[in-house]
Amino acid sequence: MTLSGQAGGQAEAQALPGWRDSVAFAADVFEQLRAQTKGEDGIQRPSYGAGEDAAHALMGRLGISLGMEHSIDDAGNLHLTLAGAQREQDRWITGSHLDAVPDGGNFDGAAGVVAGLAVVHALRAAGRTLQRDLTVIGFRAEEGSSWFRGQHKSHFGSRALLGQLGAAEMREALSVVDGRTLWEHIERAGFRPDRIKTGLTHLQTARVHAFVELHIEQGPLLVDSGIPVGIVKGIRGTLRGRNCRTLGEYAHSGAVPRESRHDALFATAELAVALENEWERWLADQRDSVCTMGRFSTDPKRHSLTKVPGEVQFSIDFRTLEAPLLNEARTFLVDAATQISARRGVAIELGSLDISPPSLMDTRLQARLRECANALDIPAVMMASGAGHDAANFSEAGVPTAMIFVRNDHGSHNPHEAMDMADFSLGTRVLAEFLMSPSPW
Amino acid sequence: MTLSGQAGGQAEAQALPGWRDSVAFAADVFEQLRAQTKGEDGIQRPSYGAGEDAAHALMGRLGISLGMEHSIDDAGNLHLTLAGAQREQDRWITGSHLDAVPDGGNFDGAAGVVAGLAVVHALRAAGRTLQRDLTVIGFRAEEGSSWFRGQHKSHFGSRALLGQLGAAEMREALSVVDGRTLWEHIERAGFRPDRIKTGLTHLQTARVHAFVELHIEQGPLLVDSGIPVGIVKGIRGTLRGRNCRTLGEYAHSGAVPRESRHDALFATAELAVALENEWERWLADQRDSVCTMGRFSTDPKRHSLTKVPGEVQFSIDFRTLEAPLLNEARTFLVDAATQISARRGVAIELGSLDISPPSLMDTRLQARLRECANALDIPAVMMASGAGHDAANFSEAGVPTAMIFVRNDHGSHNPHEAMDMADFSLGTRVLAEFLMSPSPW
Repeated sequence: MTLSGQAGGQAEAQALPGWRDSVAFAADVFEQLRAQTKGEDGIQRPSYGAGEDAAHALMGRLGISLGMEHSIDDAGNLHLTLAGAQREQDRWITGSHLDAVPDGGNFDGAAGVVAGLAVVHALRAAGRTLQRDLTVIGFRAEEGSSWFRGQHKSHFGSRALLGQLGAAEMREALSVVDGRTLWEHIERAGFRPDRIKTGLTHLQTARVHAFVELHIEQGPLLVDSGIPVGIVKGIRGTLRGRNCRTLGEYAHSGAVPRESRHDALFATAELAVALENEWERWLADQRDSVCTMGRFSTDPKRHSLTKVPGEVQFSIDFRTLEAPLLNEARTFLVDAATQISARRGVAIELGSLDISPPSLMDTRLQARLRECANALDIPAVMMASGAGHDAANFSEAGVPTAMIFVRNDHGSHNPHEAMDMADFSLGTRVLAEFLMSPSPW
Repeated sequence: MTLSGQAGGQAEAQALPGWRDSVAFAADVFEQLRAQTKGEDGIQRPSYGAGEDAAHALMGRLGISLGMEHSIDDAGNLHLTLAGAQREQDRWITGSHLDAVPDGGNFDGAAGVVAGLAVVHALRAAGRTLQRDLTVIGFRAEEGSSWFRGQHKSHFGSRALLGQLGAAEMREALSVVDGRTLWEHIERAGFRPDRIKTGLTHLQTARVHAFVELHIEQGPLLVDSGIPVGIVKGIRGTLRGRNCRTLGEYAHSGAVPRESRHDALFATAELAVALENEWERWLADQRDSVCTMGRFSTDPKRHSLTKVPGEVQFSIDFRTLEAPLLNEARTFLVDAATQISARRGVAIELGSLDISPPSLMDTRLQARLRECANALDIPAVMMASGAGHDAANFSEAGVPTAMIFVRNDHGSHNPHEAMDMADFSLGTRVLAEFLMSPSPW
């Protein structure tokens, strides 16, 4: 049967007897994973570190026990393939990453790999064979920015696989744990940084039919709206000022009159309020956006109660699904900084305001995911992803890409991530339905 | 002759032949002082430390060589007295402090002691005897807040002399250098903390005719207006929030929508802008005030580019000559913090907003100083002192008090303090004229 073109929730779902057992299998995998990578204050699965290794080994063993083909690429990504009926056809890929931020949670990343294995578990139990090959990938080092410092982007594993990671970047990124380069860490973990080449896709992307990633939601939208599953419209692009600062003039807080001051703090506070007001106007116009100044500080070495601040350092992280709004926000910031600087006799230096464009998910796949949810009577909502994901790199590489979010409380990147297995079951059931359905094209 | 009641600049100044030599004497004293207390990055005269000891010893020797009586009180303050013609009359006191902030300048404090000695030098050269005794005091530890941490006020030396320093405070203040208590530091410097009692004035304040302190200006007003001498109307009172903070909620900067955020940074920026706007309105109404948020910081241990800030720590230092405005400012801050907290779902905690009232200088002494400047054809302007001074404690103790400011570039509390000896000569000449004139009451 084909669900294509059916808009309502009237389609008939395909049978998967024994689904409950596959969910129990997944729950057990999560427990093994937690037991093996639990630290004192949260989950410890450093990018190219011991906890990540353990997670990859565990998933590899499980994949083999499920009858999947097992391979590991030059960057250490795990590939587990379930043979399809027509192996010459382009393959499905699903999966996510197996590392975690320091003191992280058990589900961010891992849920997407466990979901892939749970689907395979259910297919086997039901005696079903997919038309196409299905590869479940466990990526390395999606959280690389938390474990390696430098000017690099994150998502080392998927970017290496897709030819987006260069040697210079691997030599420049330094471990926050031991100061060694990423190159050295990849090598010491047993893989081949020397064979990872920029521009050389190590995956035959033309032979990938679609990439679908399941991930816990990292915001509160599903919890707040009471809906278990999200279908991702796109991954927000970012406008980032990583090293902004305002230079004014230190002065005596009691003796210097207002007209002689060049107060870096009041100038930067004015910029913050102007930015927040502009953001409110964008939201009022229904323009998708979130805006954050995450770091904002007078200089702890020089500031004091009784000094007019001469310097403020701050960061800007603006995100939106709308590519043009990234440029508008940059123009707004530059204009506001120029005006405030001139009027107050300070220098607001925004540095390089880097733009990373949004990654829109394939609209045909979005529609199909919605149809699958409808067929299963599983409530699902279309939504933006505010966080970056390995899926963004597949989209950038031209692979038709989609994402499924599963409701999760307390945000992610912390030990209190709270994904209910009932919700995992619903999101993963949508994934299974999707993979069993004929292609939308 | 009396200058009292004369408003113009027509009065005749009193002769002081050899004044130029006395200025040269003062210049030499400043050079000796600088040579003895110069550190790598500025002047080093820690409160109850070696550089301060050296300064006291130097001034003591010079006072004795000028024929003055020499004594040291229980807190280590230096008292040098020039006998007057009628010793039973209430005495004049002049002077200032001999310590300096870390890496400070040569003139902040010391100028007031050297000015007293220069006047004595000139009186001797002119063969003149004052009607009253004149005591030149070199105070200890006016910059105590820079050298001792804790909840205490500063000005340890003058407050000890005036019975305003308690045992608990001496036990609570801890050296930023070695962690030892102020009590221990006073004792190790050779003095008697056990004899310093709160409420017991160690100086017979009723027998003090007036206290006049000469000090370099710490702001740019005299430099900017091209006037060498200031006559101080009063020392601004302060409203201080030393440990304010805003508690919000850390969240993912990309995944959490605006309506679910409790952003501590944007909330505190709104408070800063509201405070600055209110300050502008006060200034537009000609209400003396300066306003500073000197420390302002997200938490360096938890903040990041990609987190909505959950906490901001900040300080407030508001100063004015107008006592009622301190309460108005406090009310404004509390109301604004309450409103912003409620609207944004954050908690702005201002902590104790401590008020220290302004110290107004004696109006009769102000008028007399202005008459002396007029008589000498020295341009002088009436102005507020934004910084605190030992003079504030004399005023608080009921002693008629006045202050003379000398023009000084680059502010104070840094090695670049730039007081011209020509300006020092003019300010000190006003002081000499004042002391030679009959009392205004």
